[in-house]
Amino acid sequence: MRNNVYLGLVHYPVYNKNKDVVATSVTNFDIHDISRSCRTYDIKNYFIITPVDAQIELTERIMGYWKEGEGKEYNKKREEAFTRTELAKSVEDAIEIIKEKENKKVNIITTSAKIFPNSISYEKLSEKIYNDDEIYFILFGTGWGLIDEIMEKSEYILEPIRGRANYNHLSVRSAVAIILDRIFGEN
Amino acid sequence: MRNNVYLGLVHYPVYNKNKDVVATSVTNFDIHDISRSCRTYDIKNYFIITPVDAQIELTERIMGYWKEGEGKEYNKKREEAFTRTELAKSVEDAIEIIKEKENKKVNIITTSAKIFPNSISYEKLSEKIYNDDEIYFILFGTGWGLIDEIMEKSEYILEPIRGRANYNHLSVRSAVAIILDRIFGEN
Repeated sequence: MRNNVYLGLVHYPVYNKNKDVVATSVTNFDIHDISRSCRTYDIKNYFIITPVDAQIELTERIMGYWKEGEGKEYNKKREEAFTRTELAKSVEDAIEIIKEKENKKVNIITTSAKIFPNSISYEKLSEKIYNDDEIYFILFGTGWGLIDEIMEKSEYILEPIRGRANYNHLSVRSAVAIILDRIFGEN
Repeated sequence: MRNNVYLGLVHYPVYNKNKDVVATSVTNFDIHDISRSCRTYDIKNYFIITPVDAQIELTERIMGYWKEGEGKEYNKKREEAFTRTELAKSVEDAIEIIKEKENKKVNIITTSAKIFPNSISYEKLSEKIYNDDEIYFILFGTGWGLIDEIMEKSEYILEPIRGRANYNHLSVRSAVAIILDRIFGEN
């Protein structure tokens, strides 16, 4: 069913340039841009995933400003964008929160620049989501991407986004926007 | 022809919330995310448009870091993303730069949440761009959008992006990504 889709942005554990496992920083634009994209495409919850206390506090402060503080008065639409944005300390925690709500198995969807045996096209995943009643959790990695252990838990892996150039290095914020549009857009 | 497309992000003149004409600030993410999207979809030049000296200096400093400074060593792909990013002091200046290069009329394309007599679908515009040899300049407004005088110069106005919710407030960075994918993506 269309309204059973969750999205997570993983700040830990992800790879850095040298394939070390690191925690990246939450950026203001990860919160704003992706909350707005998720709200536009009717995602049930957007989880910002980080175990780092200072990052959690920062994220809560930014969201608080728009949800309850001055920002709410300044821009009602931004408050609305944040109503479905949540924090989680780990991918596992986010999955637990979803399971408790839905009482169903959670299917992890990831994206990769590579092709895997369980790679799926945008069209096929869109069809599935519209026609079954399973729960989907689309995960995006920051930094140099999700670690292998998370990738291996994927039910499906979305095909890489290709433009027309032989350059394929979108920001995670742009990738989220394009992928949501490809799966859920009116086109 | 496919390779005759330019993109501009307008920081002045745009409306603020109260429909005053203002100059907005260039953000780091306007530079990075949109340069990377433009490079991925093979846009000829991405113009960051602002007449404000301090903003021009800031933008040049950020781009310099990635094009020639330490950033170049750290991330080659980011340097590559910036090779087609330029600054212009006004929409008119950007059009002049394009005209000098191409020696042809420049067709302005804008986007709007409203429908106009010259509104065009993504599919139709994509067809046009692939099949004719005209020059297209896709303009995006920051703040609360491009002023009417610019909108009136549009050859075509792209239909609003609709998700599935009755909420439609994407960030300009997300809107650029989705629109480039709709026109030029492999889907």
